[in-house]
Amino acid sequence: MSHIDELRNKVDEVTLEMIKLLKTRTDIAKEIGNIKKNLGLGITDQAREEQLRAKIISLCHDIGLDESIGTKFLNFLLTESVKIQSETKQTHLSVFLKAKALEEEGKKIIHMEVGEPDFSPPKIVKNALEEVYDKGFVKYGQAKGMPVFRTALAESVTKLYGTNTKPENIIVCPGARFAVYLAITTLLNAGDEIIVIEPAWPAYRECAQNSGIKVRSIKTTLESKWEPSVQQIADAINSNTKMIVLNYPNNPTGKILPPKLQDKIIEVVIKNDLYILSDEIYSQYTYNKEWKSILSYNYKKSIVTQSFSKSHSMTGFRIGFAITDSQIIDKMAKLQALCLTNVSEPMQYVALQALKADTSNNSINMKTRLNTVTQKAKAMKLDFVEPDGAMYLFVKLGNESFDATKFTNEALNFGLALAPGEAFGDYKNFIRISTGIEEKNLMEGMSLLKTVLDKK
Amino acid sequence: MSHIDELRNKVDEVTLEMIKLLKTRTDIAKEIGNIKKNLGLGITDQAREEQLRAKIISLCHDIGLDESIGTKFLNFLLTESVKIQSETKQTHLSVFLKAKALEEEGKKIIHMEVGEPDFSPPKIVKNALEEVYDKGFVKYGQAKGMPVFRTALAESVTKLYGTNTKPENIIVCPGARFAVYLAITTLLNAGDEIIVIEPAWPAYRECAQNSGIKVRSIKTTLESKWEPSVQQIADAINSNTKMIVLNYPNNPTGKILPPKLQDKIIEVVIKNDLYILSDEIYSQYTYNKEWKSILSYNYKKSIVTQSFSKSHSMTGFRIGFAITDSQIIDKMAKLQALCLTNVSEPMQYVALQALKADTSNNSINMKTRLNTVTQKAKAMKLDFVEPDGAMYLFVKLGNESFDATKFTNEALNFGLALAPGEAFGDYKNFIRISTGIEEKNLMEGMSLLKTVLDKK
Repeated sequence: MSHIDELRNKVDEVTLEMIKLLKTRTDIAKEIGNIKKNLGLGITDQAREEQLRAKIISLCHDIGLDESIGTKFLNFLLTESVKIQSETKQTHLSVFLKAKALEEEGKKIIHMEVGEPDFSPPKIVKNALEEVYDKGFVKYGQAKGMPVFRTALAESVTKLYGTNTKPENIIVCPGARFAVYLAITTLLNAGDEIIVIEPAWPAYRECAQNSGIKVRSIKTTLESKWEPSVQQIADAINSNTKMIVLNYPNNPTGKILPPKLQDKIIEVVIKNDLYILSDEIYSQYTYNKEWKSILSYNYKKSIVTQSFSKSHSMTGFRIGFAITDSQIIDKMAKLQALCLTNVSEPMQYVALQALKADTSNNSINMKTRLNTVTQKAKAMKLDFVEPDGAMYLFVKLGNESFDATKFTNEALNFGLALAPGEAFGDYKNFIRISTGIEEKNLMEGMSLLKTVLDKK
Repeated sequence: MSHIDELRNKVDEVTLEMIKLLKTRTDIAKEIGNIKKNLGLGITDQAREEQLRAKIISLCHDIGLDESIGTKFLNFLLTESVKIQSETKQTHLSVFLKAKALEEEGKKIIHMEVGEPDFSPPKIVKNALEEVYDKGFVKYGQAKGMPVFRTALAESVTKLYGTNTKPENIIVCPGARFAVYLAITTLLNAGDEIIVIEPAWPAYRECAQNSGIKVRSIKTTLESKWEPSVQQIADAINSNTKMIVLNYPNNPTGKILPPKLQDKIIEVVIKNDLYILSDEIYSQYTYNKEWKSILSYNYKKSIVTQSFSKSHSMTGFRIGFAITDSQIIDKMAKLQALCLTNVSEPMQYVALQALKADTSNNSINMKTRLNTVTQKAKAMKLDFVEPDGAMYLFVKLGNESFDATKFTNEALNFGLALAPGEAFGDYKNFIRISTGIEEKNLMEGMSLLKTVLDKK
């Protein structure tokens, strides 16, 4: 028998030995599951997992196995024994769908649940739609986006942020959401970890979980003005941590980080060689505080997402983009080509034209709306941190036992749609109020909110 | 110590034991890798893998472990030890990009590599683009597609195939490609297996590999008229097999299966409870033989993909759809919502209008083009099976040692772009000729092909 055959036999033996242990492990896990079920306990136990993880890391050091291989293996075993639970959380989307159903029954609903400005898309969009057929933007195109559009976006970014952004640093996507999906899915592997600062837009967590990536949540509080501490972030980083998600101005809190805090966070992140996924789609809606794009740090492993949805009020068109290093663009483009071939060419042409529009009125109007709602909320003595930007108020309605999800269902019966806090993390006593609609309706909505609150 | 704590300690012990074996396994795998490298051997060895898989299945039966858990575990170990190689294959896309670069240098290129009809989209599309802004289809919509569009598609499918298709059986996607991605990604898990009959459009394999799903290829041959045997399919099915992909009329061969053979294949597939992913985007281009949609079998686990790209020549718009059971639609919609929120609303409105257009001229013209090229290819004594549909000829240029990829590079220098066979599977001595362009250009392309062949 040749040496290679001997080695192969050994591999087989070892593998079969592992399978036997897998059987033992599965049997014990089942037994534990049954006991937990009888005791009415949940399936996962974070503290237990961490203990086992620590033991494995220690063993890896002792026997000279790459720690990240060991912990990935653990993550595989954990996913196999604890199948991902089906999502039962209520989100702004489920409220929206309920609201739509009530509307179909003839009920009037004030929509303060959805993150969608009600402004019309710029008028130039109408002209662009009228000419795109004759201009011939109707065929297959490049996965990264139309060259002329990527060039225009690079110029626009350079002008806005004083960067040196080139077309090869841009990928056009069908919405910033898809850019987030691409970045998380292509840059991280199953078993890797991602840090999400909560409250947060649910898509970050969902994209990670969808790829078997472990989410480490950093919980911020209203009391600490939604600011994470540098220590919290440092403590959350381990050898499997590959990415942190930032989103300022924040959805749902409207928070903008103080520049010095942001600098310190970025310092820790860079020291640990993490990717930064910075979702900056609310950058046009910044008001009370100085906001600094993550692009300004000129960090190679940062991916900034942008969109025409909020700034140009073009939600339905599905055009967003990411700005990052060209090698990261290449990785993202590979999955985009696999999924989509290319982004709709007519929509890209239309967005290219929309770039020429002056959308500063949208910013001014949104600021007025947000101010109006903020003043009203203050008068109602609601508990919240005044937003620095974006288009939301994140309001605490009661102590930890207050069920805001139930509350949003009650509000719906009064004709008011609100987003429950649990969609954004462990914030079951919060609601998110969106200021996407006209002031008159916003004021009516706030009055309804008062009515429902007074009933409690 | 409580019973549950005892059990937990056992889990820890077993897990650490597995990690030690993982270390042993990794070390041996490295040693084998080094020996192989020195001998100039490839990294994977399919026959070896299958032996180990058989041993594991046998062990699973002996010890009472679910066989699919054991083989999934093996797939995890194999993926970890043999990282997926970067794609080095040449595809029609890489040829297309090279051709574009040559065109920019001023060279004239005849494009017979891309699967894109050069017809204009229906005129009604222009009108629809002009009115979509004022009609207000510019905001967020539902993940599954606009209700009015899904209703129209369901009616159209029912009319075409005599089915009883309802709106809840339809999901609108940004291209049939995304529908394929959704179906494979959401219905299968890492470690599952999928059967692909080759030659095949590369996206099926790529989508599967992207999710850690194992692809079992069934190789069909020109000699057997591109027909798989029922036995081949039965032999490829094991306990991990979850789906088979069908694509008739076929890209790249133009094949339509004889109805009786198709019936028998479906019988085996249904008996084994597999999903059928049937990509029917060339259904409007069927000529020589009776074609039967997989919808006609009324099988709950079939997913049929369709698109406006080929039938309506609307490639750049990115509108396709899938027709399947409503519970499967729900699963696909969950990932689509995560990735995209919704498909571009203006594009959905435009496609809804395009449904009203009579596109029979496209079918007639494509048939003429395909006939012309077929006759010319016969006159040139090329080795191929006359296509029953679609818009391609799949031509054998020489024996197994013939390098068709090199040949397509040579042809490019003569101004002719062709797709190399290796993109579609193990067909290195084949090329795919696309008939998407006008007859005059097709004839010129075929003359160029003759010129390059005569040089050999």
